[in-house]
Amino acid sequence: MSSRRCAACKQLRRRCPSDCIFLPYFPPNNPQRFSFVHRIYGASNVGKMLQHVQEHQRADVADSLYYEAYCRIKSPVYGCVGIISILHQEIDRLGRELAKVQAEISLVKTQAQAETQLAQGQQVELSSFDLSTTTPWFY
Amino acid sequence: MSSRRCAACKQLRRRCPSDCIFLPYFPPNNPQRFSFVHRIYGASNVGKMLQHVQEHQRADVADSLYYEAYCRIKSPVYGCVGIISILHQEIDRLGRELAKVQAEISLVKTQAQAETQLAQGQQVELSSFDLSTTTPWFY
Repeated sequence: MSSRRCAACKQLRRRCPSDCIFLPYFPPNNPQRFSFVHRIYGASNVGKMLQHVQEHQRADVADSLYYEAYCRIKSPVYGCVGIISILHQEIDRLGRELAKVQAEISLVKTQAQAETQLAQGQQVELSSFDLSTTTPWFY
Repeated sequence: MSSRRCAACKQLRRRCPSDCIFLPYFPPNNPQRFSFVHRIYGASNVGKMLQHVQEHQRADVADSLYYEAYCRIKSPVYGCVGIISILHQEIDRLGRELAKVQAEISLVKTQAQAETQLAQGQQVELSSFDLSTTTPWFY
């Protein structure tokens, strides 16, 4: 019976009922997963949060709670909010980089257009002396 | 005495000592702030997390715990991990957009270079008939 207990019931040294709320999401072969959420939220709060949502959503609740608990243990001051800050900074950086490249592309296009017009203008100017299209004066 | 209690001690109906760990970060004029973290982590775990870090870091701990609790209450399945996913998607989108614009700028530069070379080539071709630089045959 003991080997069939989930990580939560095993750690809390209690019987694991067949309808245990933790059983599908905190398997006994990964004790750290439960240990982390228990340390940050407490088993009772984790159980409440799992029960608060529909059954098909509980795996995502367990995964996201584990991720947040893991971040809080690794970074006790900012937790996963620190990751959110870093991602916002990265978005700002990419946004600035994109704006810069977009400004550069506008400039290159304008310059290319100006150079083409200039080259065409020079051709028009030169073509007025083009022997192949102008009848010589001495004819 | 009652009016000087912090939001935590007020909600937990207990005396608020002058060295209360919650007092500087959970003022009585914002009861929801404590209510949210209490609901998600439990007052005892919040107290432990505040005590676990140095005093100058505690305001950031309280702010980040409040933000995570707020997200978990608004989004019970993903919490602030949902925000992390959205930000990752935004970074991927900006990265793809940036790569696209960088590819476009390379193409525009190559085209502009090719057009300039073509225009210069035509000028060279035409300049061999340029009357202003060529001595007329009848001189």
